[in-house]
Amino acid sequence: MTQVYEKVALIGLGLIASSMSWAIKRGGLAGQVTGYARSQETRDTARRIDLCDVCESAADAVKDADLVVLCVPVGVMGAVAQEIAPYLKSGATVSDVGSVKRAVIEAVSPFIPDDVHFVPAHPLAGTEHSGPEAGFASLFDNRWNLLVPVEGTDPTAVDRLRAFWEGMGANVDVMDPDHHDLVLAVTSHVPHLIAYTMVGVADDLRRVTDSEVIKYSAAGFRDFTRIAASDPTMWRDVFLSNQEATLEILGRFTEELFDLQRAIRTGDGDKLHQYFTRTRAIRRGIIQAGQDTDAPDFGRVKK
Amino acid sequence: MTQVYEKVALIGLGLIASSMSWAIKRGGLAGQVTGYARSQETRDTARRIDLCDVCESAADAVKDADLVVLCVPVGVMGAVAQEIAPYLKSGATVSDVGSVKRAVIEAVSPFIPDDVHFVPAHPLAGTEHSGPEAGFASLFDNRWNLLVPVEGTDPTAVDRLRAFWEGMGANVDVMDPDHHDLVLAVTSHVPHLIAYTMVGVADDLRRVTDSEVIKYSAAGFRDFTRIAASDPTMWRDVFLSNQEATLEILGRFTEELFDLQRAIRTGDGDKLHQYFTRTRAIRRGIIQAGQDTDAPDFGRVKK
Repeated sequence: MTQVYEKVALIGLGLIASSMSWAIKRGGLAGQVTGYARSQETRDTARRIDLCDVCESAADAVKDADLVVLCVPVGVMGAVAQEIAPYLKSGATVSDVGSVKRAVIEAVSPFIPDDVHFVPAHPLAGTEHSGPEAGFASLFDNRWNLLVPVEGTDPTAVDRLRAFWEGMGANVDVMDPDHHDLVLAVTSHVPHLIAYTMVGVADDLRRVTDSEVIKYSAAGFRDFTRIAASDPTMWRDVFLSNQEATLEILGRFTEELFDLQRAIRTGDGDKLHQYFTRTRAIRRGIIQAGQDTDAPDFGRVKK
Repeated sequence: MTQVYEKVALIGLGLIASSMSWAIKRGGLAGQVTGYARSQETRDTARRIDLCDVCESAADAVKDADLVVLCVPVGVMGAVAQEIAPYLKSGATVSDVGSVKRAVIEAVSPFIPDDVHFVPAHPLAGTEHSGPEAGFASLFDNRWNLLVPVEGTDPTAVDRLRAFWEGMGANVDVMDPDHHDLVLAVTSHVPHLIAYTMVGVADDLRRVTDSEVIKYSAAGFRDFTRIAASDPTMWRDVFLSNQEATLEILGRFTEELFDLQRAIRTGDGDKLHQYFTRTRAIRRGIIQAGQDTDAPDFGRVKK
């Protein structure tokens, strides 16, 4: 493969950054990868597993970097951008991997120097695990990465970032920030909130013990616990910074849920059957698009 | 392994019955397995894949059977019980695999002859696929089967059914019908309803296309589509026949959801973080109990 950037700096060394580092190495996409994490423990772990060239400050990591990727929770993107701004190389590109785009653009843009490109991005990939040891090179293979360039961005910088992500295995689309935030509210943010809520309800019942919930989870519940085990800080920031779209989709969700609840209460079997039939088509589409497998047993490997 | 029954009859030949047939053969648990399905097409398919001895009537299938298992949707259990009652062998056991127990007991019990045992059961296992070709022998391995015997049942009949399910790989617990229906409302019924609703909302939005939902589903949404692709008839019957417990748990769910919604609206990050941290413990319990794997990428196999 071809090198796309001479030096890439990853700020924050969690699941996404560590997967990026392995994917960059797999693809030979950069001459050097540096990294920085605020926690000493994370930096030590990253060094131990030989993830990348770990620096003792963000300033050191971004020095001379052609691409700087902010891989920190959405809520601290602005502070990190402010911290690194004085050390950015002229002509460099700053990007990020945040799950929300309008809020990140508003927080980060003011700190980007005039001679630096800012191309926000969001790779739609992840697992329920966190930290530098959770990453693996194939995380982005056949997953989508949405680039959300701000107005007036140099198209060359966007194309280069696109080539970089394609080199890591991803498909790339370009999207407007507000539309991004609405699409993600549907495909990610509200599903996570609902999963967290369902697990919270189960944990809180007096008449059903936690031990029963755990033992008998194979009947559907366990699929919710997987995404409800995701990183709490990341998700707190997502909801606080994508408030408007999340609340809009939540409103639609509860409206539909109440409608189905009424069908259950009144015994309207036809309505339920019709609804449950319609939702099968989307599933077929997802499998055809290669975004999930058709393997049975809720995706678990057959013994 | 040891034969537990001389002849087992499976009425209904979907995912559960076909998995049972393969698991019975794997374990050598019966001398003969007969089967019947109402649809000619299903019977033809079952014959083609050599699933079991397929009969042209339920009466033929249950004749001389030591164990008859009703593997049909909950809503038709009563009608099937009425149909087979005259042909049941004296001393035989009738069981079922329905996801709801109180309603099945009320529907089936009146038709069970005095010289026949009735031991309702519910194997907590399944996939999102349906039909006689969806079954596989290991479906019940390390999954739980809940036996819900009615008062006055001969303990010998219960023990024999327990040995039969253990022979198919399952763990067996005994539970009271009303508690069963509440536990399953939490671990299965409400999660399915919520998943159906979320998929329905996504399908119905004008500002986000189905194609976008499908392409960008890896961010969480796809985990919901899996269980929302389950059999519509089965699930219609589940909700109509476990109305009370489903509505109770739904009430708790919406109460908690509104509470989190308010936290998002008011920007109460501490509350969100605390909630999202608490739900991780349940996930750990499920993995420790062997009811799911710790494999990342939402359980999909790494490439």
